[in-house]
Amino acid sequence: MDSTPGASPPFVHFIRVGWGDCDPARIAFTGRLAAFALEAIDAWWEHVIGADWYRMNIDRGVGTPFVHMTMDFRSPVTPRHRLACEVALLRLGASSVRLGVRGRQEGKLCFAGEFVQALLRAPDYAKFEIPEDVLAKLRSAVVAAEPSLDGREEPGRDGRRP
Amino acid sequence: MDSTPGASPPFVHFIRVGWGDCDPARIAFTGRLAAFALEAIDAWWEHVIGADWYRMNIDRGVGTPFVHMTMDFRSPVTPRHRLACEVALLRLGASSVRLGVRGRQEGKLCFAGEFVQALLRAPDYAKFEIPEDVLAKLRSAVVAAEPSLDGREEPGRDGRRP
Amino acid sequence: MDSTPGASPPFVHFIRVGWGDCDPARIAFTGRLAAFALEAIDAWWEHVIGADWYRMNIDRGVGTPFVHMTMDFRSPVTPRHRLACEVALLRLGASSVRLGVRGRQEGKLCFAGEFVQALLRAPDYAKFEIPEDVLAKLRSAVVAAEPSLDGREEPGRDGRRP
Amino acid sequence: MDSTPGASPPFVHFIRVGWGDCDPARIAFTGRLAAFALEAIDAWWEHVIGADWYRMNIDRGVGTPFVHMTMDFRSPVTPRHRLACEVALLRLGASSVRLGVRGRQEGKLCFAGEFVQALLRAPDYAKFEIPEDVLAKLRSAVVAAEPSLDGREEPGRDGRRP
Repeated sequence: MDSTPGASPPFVHFIRVGWGDCDPARIAFTGRLAAFALEAIDAWWEHVIGADWYRMNIDRGVGTPFVHMTMDFRSPVTPRHRLACEVALLRLGASSVRLGVRGRQEGKLCFAGEFVQALLRAPDYAKFEIPEDVLAKLRSAVVAAEPSLDGREEPGRDGRRP
Repeated sequence: MDSTPGASPPFVHFIRVGWGDCDPARIAFTGRLAAFALEAIDAWWEHVIGADWYRMNIDRGVGTPFVHMTMDFRSPVTPRHRLACEVALLRLGASSVRLGVRGRQEGKLCFAGEFVQALLRAPDYAKFEIPEDVLAKLRSAVVAAEPSLDGREEPGRDGRRP
Repeated sequence: MDSTPGASPPFVHFIRVGWGDCDPARIAFTGRLAAFALEAIDAWWEHVIGADWYRMNIDRGVGTPFVHMTMDFRSPVTPRHRLACEVALLRLGASSVRLGVRGRQEGKLCFAGEFVQALLRAPDYAKFEIPEDVLAKLRSAVVAAEPSLDGREEPGRDGRRP
Repeated sequence: MDSTPGASPPFVHFIRVGWGDCDPARIAFTGRLAAFALEAIDAWWEHVIGADWYRMNIDRGVGTPFVHMTMDFRSPVTPRHRLACEVALLRLGASSVRLGVRGRQEGKLCFAGEFVQALLRAPDYAKFEIPEDVLAKLRSAVVAAEPSLDGREEPGRDGRRP
């Protein structure tokens, strides 16, 4: 995904898909796929930035509400394999982040999505300056430009690594 | 939403938002908002087309997997009011439907989304001809063109009422 | 359920069961049945006591954590019918309530459960005196003794109406 | 849990608890705790018996509907630690299993529950003979008698190891 010299490998969060996640079509329900992608992003915050949404909101005073999500579903997800969710920070704005999530089973792309979170002061969700240490970690986590889902170049570049 | 003479009023599905739907920010969790929109679409099938996904898949042999979803979150959803989800069939393709969902509390827009479902033969999800009676109901349920979320005109028009 | 002269009719909360609640066995997943029963209890607080858990915790400072639940599953729940959940306050203790929930579809008993909630000061969950107006409403909501699920008499009687 | 010479160590399933699992009290919602325990049992089937519910139902024709669950909630579950769910087969009946689940964070018991699953022919849920290889694995997985949650001895002993 990122061949820049010195770039970190992509973050991958593995999810156990179970019987209770599946609908009568014997595949994971669409609502569960959205929840899986969100869980993967929460895990990305924990592992890459150092605090999951719970700690970020409660301990650090950084609120992280979603303002947008889009998902394309390409192939069914089933309990027969673990679901590998690759998460990447695509764009860092002044008060938001755009993250990409790609879910794969056995290497096959099952879904791809993009999610935008506002970064606001918690718990009142007022505009604020992102704490400097969080900002620094976010900056270094932005991946190099990649083609977006439909082939267009991502428009925004603020906060990207050179 | 639709001022065409003789047009049906929009379908609205009401959802009780509860404690268990909320996260520590005291608002409904993003994953629950996606589930609410999906529930509203399932209810739309039941009330407008005459069979929910369960009956459509199991009784009628019409599979309804999602291929796309996009949601914009505008205002928090809380248990203080019922959530009114307006669902409209925006486009009817040869083997898919595009539905719009707008969630409101006390009249205020909380989220707006668009969802695309493929219509395939169940349970094997092969391409097929949509049963004529289902197709007829879908045709008469398509709403007149409306501006899409970001102001662009919807590109596809197949299946629209004149 | 209660033939005492002047007794209120039982509270019934209706739930729409959908495709997303069902598992590959084409019936509502066990985890969803537990969630349904909890939703019914939340609705009972709202309609019978005057504030749901959200308002009780946040507006009134009354925390309501569960300390026990037991459920017997008698018959499958499907999307073919609405689920009628009858909720009754079986016992009012000094700092807890025991509620019974019976879920029925088309009159047939699908599940029966008992749930115990502690009543503590929110948000710190310290022991406290239940606010008098809440206590009064709880007292008047306790149903007359009924045989418990397995035919034994309920042991505790504190707070019961004569 | 089982000091019989040669006994297997207890099976433990680890769960990542996240923001979306928590309610406004900042702890995992009761309904999610029930779902966690069920997920742990599904994982137990996969790791100890060799097939999770999905494979057991779909590939092996063994239906596994729950007929009973009981849970005691002892201490709040939060995202600050992984949730370790210990699962043990407490009793093997002619057409059912009773499993115990204990959820711990940092060694502290958060909840303990018992769950009974019927074992029936899938997908029609008729009574049948449990396939011999499944039965053999279940027999060898039964743990030695342990005091039940409330100190009473488990009544049934059919299928227990000597």
